[in-house]
Amino acid sequence: MTDTVKINRGLKGVYFERSAVSDIDGAAGELSYRGYSIHDLATQSSFEEVCYLLIHGELPDARQMAEFDAALKAARTLPGAVREIIAACKDGHPMDVLRTAVSALAALEPQSRETGEDAFVANGIRLTAQVPMIVAAHHAIRRGRDPVAPDPELGHAANWLWMLKGEMPSDAAARLADVDFILHAEHGANASSFAARVTVGTEANLHGAIVTALSTLAGPAHGGAAEDVMKMVHEIGKPENAAAYVRARRAAREAVTGFGHRVYRREDPRARHMREGVRRLGEEMGAPEWYEILQAVVEAMKPYARHGLNVNVDFYSGVIYQLHGIPMDLYVPIFAIGRMPGWVIQCIEQQRRNILIRPLTLYDGPGPRRYVPMKDR
Amino acid sequence: MTDTVKINRGLKGVYFERSAVSDIDGAAGELSYRGYSIHDLATQSSFEEVCYLLIHGELPDARQMAEFDAALKAARTLPGAVREIIAACKDGHPMDVLRTAVSALAALEPQSRETGEDAFVANGIRLTAQVPMIVAAHHAIRRGRDPVAPDPELGHAANWLWMLKGEMPSDAAARLADVDFILHAEHGANASSFAARVTVGTEANLHGAIVTALSTLAGPAHGGAAEDVMKMVHEIGKPENAAAYVRARRAAREAVTGFGHRVYRREDPRARHMREGVRRLGEEMGAPEWYEILQAVVEAMKPYARHGLNVNVDFYSGVIYQLHGIPMDLYVPIFAIGRMPGWVIQCIEQQRRNILIRPLTLYDGPGPRRYVPMKDR
Repeated sequence: MTDTVKINRGLKGVYFERSAVSDIDGAAGELSYRGYSIHDLATQSSFEEVCYLLIHGELPDARQMAEFDAALKAARTLPGAVREIIAACKDGHPMDVLRTAVSALAALEPQSRETGEDAFVANGIRLTAQVPMIVAAHHAIRRGRDPVAPDPELGHAANWLWMLKGEMPSDAAARLADVDFILHAEHGANASSFAARVTVGTEANLHGAIVTALSTLAGPAHGGAAEDVMKMVHEIGKPENAAAYVRARRAAREAVTGFGHRVYRREDPRARHMREGVRRLGEEMGAPEWYEILQAVVEAMKPYARHGLNVNVDFYSGVIYQLHGIPMDLYVPIFAIGRMPGWVIQCIEQQRRNILIRPLTLYDGPGPRRYVPMKDR
Repeated sequence: MTDTVKINRGLKGVYFERSAVSDIDGAAGELSYRGYSIHDLATQSSFEEVCYLLIHGELPDARQMAEFDAALKAARTLPGAVREIIAACKDGHPMDVLRTAVSALAALEPQSRETGEDAFVANGIRLTAQVPMIVAAHHAIRRGRDPVAPDPELGHAANWLWMLKGEMPSDAAARLADVDFILHAEHGANASSFAARVTVGTEANLHGAIVTALSTLAGPAHGGAAEDVMKMVHEIGKPENAAAYVRARRAAREAVTGFGHRVYRREDPRARHMREGVRRLGEEMGAPEWYEILQAVVEAMKPYARHGLNVNVDFYSGVIYQLHGIPMDLYVPIFAIGRMPGWVIQCIEQQRRNILIRPLTLYDGPGPRRYVPMKDR
């Protein structure tokens, strides 16, 4: 039997479900949410509107948008016990603290135990608003400060920067954070969304599935790219060092981080919006050198790119966070803030035609053995 | 393309990896760990020995067993902050509290962030010892009592009952809890173990993977069977009502809980050991009626069983917990206590030849659409 069974390692190329949420054309380098090109959404939409689009399937009209926005803002609350829990483990990694706090919300807010599509939508909106609050509150608490209260005048991205930094972001900075969230909002059956679907497959509630997604995103091979790129940028130090850095890495047959993706065979379509953003934010903040280092790496990589350069979205995002003075251990939590609506809608989709997701492993261990009592071993 | 792609819903029948841990022959109704029949292990081994066997692949000799046992006992500690966190969310469901506490351990114990096989083994042993402590501590705290300190004289199962109930279990009761843990220790690519592997696939640490497993086990379709059976037993009330209950369910085309399993086509091989255990514990405790109700249900089911009766393991376990006076919301946490070594070794196996587990969804949403600004909608 061992010889005739096909093992699909990593489930690469295996379809497990249909989805009407995002379409990824890896060969063409195209991504769309609900039929809308990521380029249109990144240039014309807002994160709140993209949340509505992903969760409800259509762009909202003005009244629908206002109601959705009001629901998101109304959900900007955290039980006092969550702050206590954050304080009790404040020296941990922000992803561990975020996951602990979301897990605790399931224990603290009774509506989190409800299932069914309406409950998933309501809890999804609620968690989308709470996750950035948790990240910002933890960052304040670990620095010995009081968490900054959310500002109902501000949209999702601007309010995030406000709560995190305690100062009002420029319009350009807020818009760039908004675009960053839009670009990270959804990406098919990536490992965290898939794992969340496996959790929902057992009829678990949404909070459990989001906890699973957070655990899975925390793995460096999934959410760690922005941090890796930023470490590389610091190591390179200035643009004129980039060529030597790339040459040395390639000579040692080591990958240069920020290039390539499991799905895309050419440039990640999200990268161009981040590239433009990091260039402008750097100029606005009088720190253009980070962008210049990144572009010098891209130039240095060209001789090694047989099929065109495939820069991924996280090649640029780390530098944006750096320009804001955001420490590296918050990069993955920021990814999570953006990915919330994608996780939520995938869990909703999974629940609609739910099925236990239970593949098989092929046994290749020892054959039947007789149990020998300890005294005879 | 839509017509030619095969969708493997639920990944049923899809092999994603090899595993040398447990062998399940669903058609024959057989289960073995590392080549040893579950029947031999349930009658001759201990949970600690089974932990060693699962994690290290071989039965231990006396010295290896003593060392392993000492490591498990040495790990019976919880940081004070975990107790604070449990207290802060004590009114939540025990699975939510357990998951929150395990997640918090990742933030509180620096060694939990280490990866690599040695770290996974050490952290796996540690968590195997800590999970029952968390469940027992939470149960004490929510009843306004102090957690019971672990007793280094007691083995894993006896110490669990001691911490939970604050009274010394009989040898028979301790042995039955031991057997229950042995029977639940490992079961192939079940949804929680599989989800944990997806988390490890992103190079996440073990704590994150166990958090994922806990989220996934919490779904009623995975870990909820013992609770469902106990609810049924209460509804039936006495043995002579069982036949009418079963007839009514079948007439309404509703399933009778505790029968059938995704993998087994005949009786779950674990069931017989629980059956014998519940009969004896009921006699010991002067409460034989629960066993009698279960057996009356089995009798009443016989006319409906075309291919033999396929009672599953959780058909009997709920009654055992009931006899101990354990509330129903602790049934899934008890499953988790038993499943710890299975999750740990599957994460270790996954990590040895690690690969990102990322299947595909087939897009079946709207085709390309032009973005229309809000004012024109």
